[in-house]
Amino acid sequence: MKDLKEQILESVRQDLVEIEVALTDNLKPYLPLVSHVAKYIMFSGGKRIRPLLMVLSARLCGYRGNYDKTLSVVFEYLHAATLLHDDLVDGADMRRGNPVAHSIWGNPATVLVGDFLLARSIAIAARTNSVPIIDILAHTTAQMSEGEIHQLLHRGDIAVDEKDYTEVITRKTAYLIQAACQVGALLAEAPVEQVQVLAGYGYHLGIAFQIADDLLDYTADTRVIGKTTGTDLREGKLTLPVIYALDCATREDRRRLETIIRDMVAVTPTPNGELLRDVDAKDADFETVLGLIKKYGGIAYTRDRAQEHIEQAKKCLEIFDASQARTLLEQLADYVVVRKM
Amino acid sequence: MKDLKEQILESVRQDLVEIEVALTDNLKPYLPLVSHVAKYIMFSGGKRIRPLLMVLSARLCGYRGNYDKTLSVVFEYLHAATLLHDDLVDGADMRRGNPVAHSIWGNPATVLVGDFLLARSIAIAARTNSVPIIDILAHTTAQMSEGEIHQLLHRGDIAVDEKDYTEVITRKTAYLIQAACQVGALLAEAPVEQVQVLAGYGYHLGIAFQIADDLLDYTADTRVIGKTTGTDLREGKLTLPVIYALDCATREDRRRLETIIRDMVAVTPTPNGELLRDVDAKDADFETVLGLIKKYGGIAYTRDRAQEHIEQAKKCLEIFDASQARTLLEQLADYVVVRKM
Repeated sequence: MKDLKEQILESVRQDLVEIEVALTDNLKPYLPLVSHVAKYIMFSGGKRIRPLLMVLSARLCGYRGNYDKTLSVVFEYLHAATLLHDDLVDGADMRRGNPVAHSIWGNPATVLVGDFLLARSIAIAARTNSVPIIDILAHTTAQMSEGEIHQLLHRGDIAVDEKDYTEVITRKTAYLIQAACQVGALLAEAPVEQVQVLAGYGYHLGIAFQIADDLLDYTADTRVIGKTTGTDLREGKLTLPVIYALDCATREDRRRLETIIRDMVAVTPTPNGELLRDVDAKDADFETVLGLIKKYGGIAYTRDRAQEHIEQAKKCLEIFDASQARTLLEQLADYVVVRKM
Repeated sequence: MKDLKEQILESVRQDLVEIEVALTDNLKPYLPLVSHVAKYIMFSGGKRIRPLLMVLSARLCGYRGNYDKTLSVVFEYLHAATLLHDDLVDGADMRRGNPVAHSIWGNPATVLVGDFLLARSIAIAARTNSVPIIDILAHTTAQMSEGEIHQLLHRGDIAVDEKDYTEVITRKTAYLIQAACQVGALLAEAPVEQVQVLAGYGYHLGIAFQIADDLLDYTADTRVIGKTTGTDLREGKLTLPVIYALDCATREDRRRLETIIRDMVAVTPTPNGELLRDVDAKDADFETVLGLIKKYGGIAYTRDRAQEHIEQAKKCLEIFDASQARTLLEQLADYVVVRKM
């Protein structure tokens, strides 16, 4: 039996080809530097999950037009803009095994190309002549930057609880995925109920996606994921496994965790305001944290939370009749929590 | 007789009060950091020329609704977002006599608040339910970032001619001012001819505004403008006075100019990609350049170009009957080239 990933890929091969063409075509008339930076970030192993969700949501709602692939690039552009700016904000060095864009083209070009992609997204959306679609994108983008600011302000804050965490990942990840599904339905001029149900599907899928992604930072095989495990912790980002462990730990273990976390993030900002760039946490410290997370069942708890959201996502789709699009959206939901990278 | 600035201010006092209220109100529900950074950049001596142009353009076209002041903040937010990101891109230290935002809040917060303001602008525009208005804003924003990228790529490039310069300032400044006037007309649901004519007015005013602004960098009294003269040159930005001088100079003088410009911008980028930050051009060199500009009439030529655009801007307004709004738009045009800061 083929594995889930291959099954999905086989069904969406043609869609993915058309999405790739649209991603390139919509950058063509612009300055070469824009294309270079945008392509570098977009064509380095992205899974096109956001465009694909938009295209499949539109199809599920009976869309028969030909603007779906073009509109779908908006979600990849917005995602790319966010990655460009976030890597800069985080002072990251590597993404998926490659040097980050700002280490190649410099901070100025990275900031500006991100701005350009944001603006270009809205311009592409405006061509639908649909104010609700534009409105969703504008609000999603504002929420995403607010989410990043929130995360920036709470770096290394050990008082962060599961509610705060959910708030951050909702803004950072779930809203954009929700928007992709909602916009697909709106493009198909679907009835309000279908739009809302797909928004719900996208929201739960997005939350599960980010929980699973954060979990990989503690469990992944570094040769597969192409980045070092423990990166979040080293950058002072507390995600669900460690938040849960902190919550359950004995006073003594909690103190051990807190000390390690404080040491990891306690670095002086550089003169130009970049924070935490030089965090050089010892691998031994990370292993200690991982051990404590496992001791309190943080990995299993996190996996269960992701799975719960996946079940809720799939439940949202029940109002739709059986179709290939529905099956694919269900499979994509399952895939999100089993993927290795 | 009152001077032009006071005459204008007296007529628009109430509008300016309402614009200030809208600027603050539309940031209220957001994170305190967003408000702090946004207010720091917006409430440090800005002239509100963009919101005012939108409000007056709407009024000239007979607008009677109550969304004009709210919508007008979009142009100040977009402008502020651009300033935040550009100061970072330029590695600037001071703006209007104050330390730049990124030196206070750091690069990460500055990038993110800029993103937020961009997104918030589109969201406010979407409330008009007018796709053309949103479309203009999205395209203007994309053009502005492309313009900045273009400028970044041509730093210290002595082959820049007047055409290139006009291209850069069109994207960097004129498009947003043009958009403000156009959007005012669209908000008033003005006929196409009026929309086009106000776009023309905004374009010429914007070009004149930037030419005059660039000229101040060579002629201003530093105590009034609150920044050092010669900043553009030190950052490798060639503006009209020096472009004109390079064009007219004898071979010997041209070589002198080229050598000084090359020395001014010849600095190694820092490891994190920031360019030209450490340009520490000698005042004597700047005085030499200024002397050569004056020798070839670069100041007078530049002033004439700005004045020409002002005449064209005012000519655009001739299709409108006399009204207070028309008079104010004419006065604003005149003010742009006589202002001292």
